[in-house]
Amino acid sequence: MAPTPETLTAERILEATEEVLRRHGPAKATVVDVARALGVSHGSVYRHFRTKAALREAVSKRWLDRTSRALAGIAADSGRDPAARLRDWLAALFEAKRRKAGDDPELFATYMVLTDESGGAVAEHLADLVGQLTRIVRDGVESGAFAVPGPAETEARALFHATGRFHDPCYAREWKRPGVEDEFEAVVELLLRGLAAR
Amino acid sequence: MAPTPETLTAERILEATEEVLRRHGPAKATVVDVARALGVSHGSVYRHFRTKAALREAVSKRWLDRTSRALAGIAADSGRDPAARLRDWLAALFEAKRRKAGDDPELFATYMVLTDESGGAVAEHLADLVGQLTRIVRDGVESGAFAVPGPAETEARALFHATGRFHDPCYAREWKRPGVEDEFEAVVELLLRGLAAR
Repeated sequence: MAPTPETLTAERILEATEEVLRRHGPAKATVVDVARALGVSHGSVYRHFRTKAALREAVSKRWLDRTSRALAGIAADSGRDPAARLRDWLAALFEAKRRKAGDDPELFATYMVLTDESGGAVAEHLADLVGQLTRIVRDGVESGAFAVPGPAETEARALFHATGRFHDPCYAREWKRPGVEDEFEAVVELLLRGLAAR
Repeated sequence: MAPTPETLTAERILEATEEVLRRHGPAKATVVDVARALGVSHGSVYRHFRTKAALREAVSKRWLDRTSRALAGIAADSGRDPAARLRDWLAALFEAKRRKAGDDPELFATYMVLTDESGGAVAEHLADLVGQLTRIVRDGVESGAFAVPGPAETEARALFHATGRFHDPCYAREWKRPGVEDEFEAVVELLLRGLAAR
């Protein structure tokens, strides 16, 4: 039975769009394909997303948010040792990206095209992640575990940049190589020593 | 006057190849184009480079070597403070890559195609750079300025990976953004604190 227009939520449209992108690829997927997959008119889709670009950006955002949500719990767990939280947070980010790239390489490639178009969603995502890191750094400074010369946010951004090899999609090929875990450990340990109070 | 075969050195062939690549792009450049540019037969070129792939790899290697040679002096300058040398070395690497990408974007793109084919030359180049960093780290440990928990080479590799944003061509777009210098400084300072003896 085709769903009625009443049941058409933004979330259902985004799910269907991901499926259409998976099937047709990012170059060919259209709003008409999405409407057809949902059994609705394309006008109904446009009532939720005013343009094709807005729909694609919302799909990117949903995909990126899945990663940040998984990490938010670690960042917010203020009771725990900041060094352990930082280590876990960076490992969870690496793991999440690696799983996305490895489990479904075609969908990953599709999202690379999409995020390339969606500057706003990506910038928001990166700001969210740096914000989470800032919280961990700030907790560490407050507890006396970390000592940093400038604002916590500057350090958080430096941590994020220094670990790019382990979360930036341009390194996805490296994530399958043996030894990449050891490389990750060596970078994280060096950074933790850089944060540690003396 | 066309040069005689006697004057045909490997270096002259490599220079001509770079020029041909610049003119025709990496997809279309052939050994015949190179021979024509030099006024020799393609057999003469093949006497120096047995295959087109070998010639392209040698051109990549020459391009990569230009960067490592510029840095080798800083790495070898054992009399100087290791922290200052490390800072200068990383800044010189960033500057060299940024200049290559910014001054002649088309040639840079050509070399991205070439290095992608030339796994051996790239691996050698990276090993050379990590070797230079290892020397600086080792000098720092010996002088008591640095204290590291494991082998100097592990730290050197971690330093190289943690600064990828400032030398890896996949970030070339970022190098033109305002603020990238501050990002570089923040990462380098964090890493230097991680190396410093307590």
